[in-house]
Amino acid sequence: MVEMPRACVISTGTEITQGLYADTNAMSLSRLLKDHGFWVVGHAAAPDDENLIRDAIRNTFGRVDLVIVTGGLGPTQDDLNREIIAELWDTPLVHVNRAAEMIRGRFRNRGVQMPPRNLKQANTPKDAKILLNFWGTAPGFFLRRTDDKPALLALPGVPSEWRSMMGRYFERDVLPSLPQRPFTRIHTIHLALVPESTVNECLSDLFDRDEGVMLGLLASRGIIRVRIATRGKSEAQCEQRLARTREEVLNRLPQDIVLAEGPDTLTAEEVVIQACRTNGLTIATAESCTGGGVAKRLTNVPGSSSVLLEGFVTYSNRAKERTLGIEAGMLASEGAVSEACAAAMAAGARDNTGADLAVAITGIAGPDGGSDEKPVGTVWFAVSSRRGTETLLRHFPADRNSVREWSENQALDLLRRCAADLPIQADLTETWKTKP
Amino acid sequence: MVEMPRACVISTGTEITQGLYADTNAMSLSRLLKDHGFWVVGHAAAPDDENLIRDAIRNTFGRVDLVIVTGGLGPTQDDLNREIIAELWDTPLVHVNRAAEMIRGRFRNRGVQMPPRNLKQANTPKDAKILLNFWGTAPGFFLRRTDDKPALLALPGVPSEWRSMMGRYFERDVLPSLPQRPFTRIHTIHLALVPESTVNECLSDLFDRDEGVMLGLLASRGIIRVRIATRGKSEAQCEQRLARTREEVLNRLPQDIVLAEGPDTLTAEEVVIQACRTNGLTIATAESCTGGGVAKRLTNVPGSSSVLLEGFVTYSNRAKERTLGIEAGMLASEGAVSEACAAAMAAGARDNTGADLAVAITGIAGPDGGSDEKPVGTVWFAVSSRRGTETLLRHFPADRNSVREWSENQALDLLRRCAADLPIQADLTETWKTKP
Repeated sequence: MVEMPRACVISTGTEITQGLYADTNAMSLSRLLKDHGFWVVGHAAAPDDENLIRDAIRNTFGRVDLVIVTGGLGPTQDDLNREIIAELWDTPLVHVNRAAEMIRGRFRNRGVQMPPRNLKQANTPKDAKILLNFWGTAPGFFLRRTDDKPALLALPGVPSEWRSMMGRYFERDVLPSLPQRPFTRIHTIHLALVPESTVNECLSDLFDRDEGVMLGLLASRGIIRVRIATRGKSEAQCEQRLARTREEVLNRLPQDIVLAEGPDTLTAEEVVIQACRTNGLTIATAESCTGGGVAKRLTNVPGSSSVLLEGFVTYSNRAKERTLGIEAGMLASEGAVSEACAAAMAAGARDNTGADLAVAITGIAGPDGGSDEKPVGTVWFAVSSRRGTETLLRHFPADRNSVREWSENQALDLLRRCAADLPIQADLTETWKTKP
Repeated sequence: MVEMPRACVISTGTEITQGLYADTNAMSLSRLLKDHGFWVVGHAAAPDDENLIRDAIRNTFGRVDLVIVTGGLGPTQDDLNREIIAELWDTPLVHVNRAAEMIRGRFRNRGVQMPPRNLKQANTPKDAKILLNFWGTAPGFFLRRTDDKPALLALPGVPSEWRSMMGRYFERDVLPSLPQRPFTRIHTIHLALVPESTVNECLSDLFDRDEGVMLGLLASRGIIRVRIATRGKSEAQCEQRLARTREEVLNRLPQDIVLAEGPDTLTAEEVVIQACRTNGLTIATAESCTGGGVAKRLTNVPGSSSVLLEGFVTYSNRAKERTLGIEAGMLASEGAVSEACAAAMAAGARDNTGADLAVAITGIAGPDGGSDEKPVGTVWFAVSSRRGTETLLRHFPADRNSVREWSENQALDLLRRCAADLPIQADLTETWKTKP
């Protein structure tokens, strides 16, 4: 089989190594490389320091086919990448008139005097192909692979600038110069509200079993992504490997825990909104410990206004009484974190709004407010629908933010299950025995 | 002056090198290291591959005093860091009973059977200090610096887990074993809802002026952080440099745009909750385009239940009418995104709940719903207090998520300003002339 070519992304800039920003360039470029059949074997970041940048680039020699370096192409003294790379490749910098003209033009168009030092941005290693910049002053450049050095793409750090360059030059000039890439396919199965260890156990023998198939699990507060990546010498082989693994994974899992299949970035709220739109259903929310987080998540989705009628953040007991009609006596006897209160909140929100589905969350997110009987992480859920009002108790042993995020995911899953007329939780005792 | 010790952060996990997530652990840990006087000379990320992780760690030998490795401590076959590090340090893994007991306890508390392989998480290199995990199953560990190897901290990838470990162990066990650090001080001035370019202009001559003083600006959707970092040969020198720069910065800025001073991580919602608690004020929210985001932000803050009485997510027009008493005729004539509607929402929320302050947000977050008259990014705000109801129109030329985040920050700033009895926005014409 054709090996995947190896790539590495290096981000330069003190703002990254000092933690002012997360390195989203490395993230976006890695996705792009992955989608083009590369294996990204590493990221590196270095501050604006000549020796450290040189070390980071040299460290990729002999280890990758392509290295992408972002940043360090500006006009200031801190911008050293042109010089460092020319020196490493043992080639002089030459002045490119076309690039200089574009830089002058940008300043002219803005009616601003060009500082003379900006012209150094028109210098490029002699053997490189210059990548013109239509969105900023810094051109990039591309050096072809040699016997002892990887191909190198030098890009500016500003996302809109490198994106436009990649769109213009990557497929046309960079890819053809690199080794042939295998065909690849990626598919993600999103699972909701089952323990990661159970899923892992159930799929463990598949992780390293088949040639050309990579299976990965990624869990985040109740949402688990099962990622299938296949490689092959033809598109058909790739597709066939994907279909076989996908079927096997799905056969081993209870069907109702599958939130969705598709791209990696799909979210639980998108699934809920989509399911409701398909079935013509409307939603109301009644939130206490999540404080509006479920409504916020639902309204992340463009077009959610046809589904979400209204959300109530009944944080105080008085709000629960006045807005959702919950009896003060019950609140006093059972407490706000109780099955009775969750049920009354959901029923009240549904009655108030006329929504088809109403979900309620009341719990103790912490750090204070826990007791022996109801420790931090205790959360009661209820969902009200034409089936009546159903309740669920969960314990999330985590910090405040995590308890709230788990709770949001659990509430969204209750909505998803009601919208599809499924039981409110998976049967984890029986269905997992399908493993061969 | 004492040299800063060098550090490097390595993130392991295929999800990082495939670009599923941005590497926020490297960002947060770099900030923490910088605040403790380290020079972060690089980041690296490696996929879950034994050879690549080993190479990344080995590459730091002889180059840094401390390396922090995150991820790879879970219970699955993908989690290799314990084994790789023990092998590199030439020390066996030993089973730590205390850690095993904590892992068993976590499963017991959740009423879940522990998969046997979770016990491998209790293994730790023999010479290491184990770092107990109170928020998850994976303990971390710490290996001291030797003649040929840096000190190494192995941490789980989940932020809440490593944060709690760093809080417990970093200053007590890790720092004393490292070379002396120069004295450093960091101070952040948080500004709200002024243009970054104006602040930049006003402070530009301070950026590279003083020895031992680093000034940085970091803007994110209406919130600007001015970060002052000083170094010195004594605590007093450090403190003096900080005090001088801080005073100069504050003298140039209108006082009422200063949200807060203090740590980097301070948030607008914390400032609002604190101001309301100090003044005994309560809050209600009425949200349309932010969909509960303001209530969610306020309830991020522990103890917010004494301040936030109730939040209304009146996403549909019917909700605005029924819950907040807004007249259908006005909605029909002015539209839901209008000054009149914002004002009526804020007044309605205040009347309904008896809160001292009520804020309302109604706008067009996009991507659809814009018009020539009211393009995407048009947002009306209102805040109701004993001063009456005041309104504000903003245009945020951005995508859906950014419009919503800008709007949250603007709404929180209105609450802050009302709580402190300040005008609802800064006067940007006069006060900026103070620059020398």
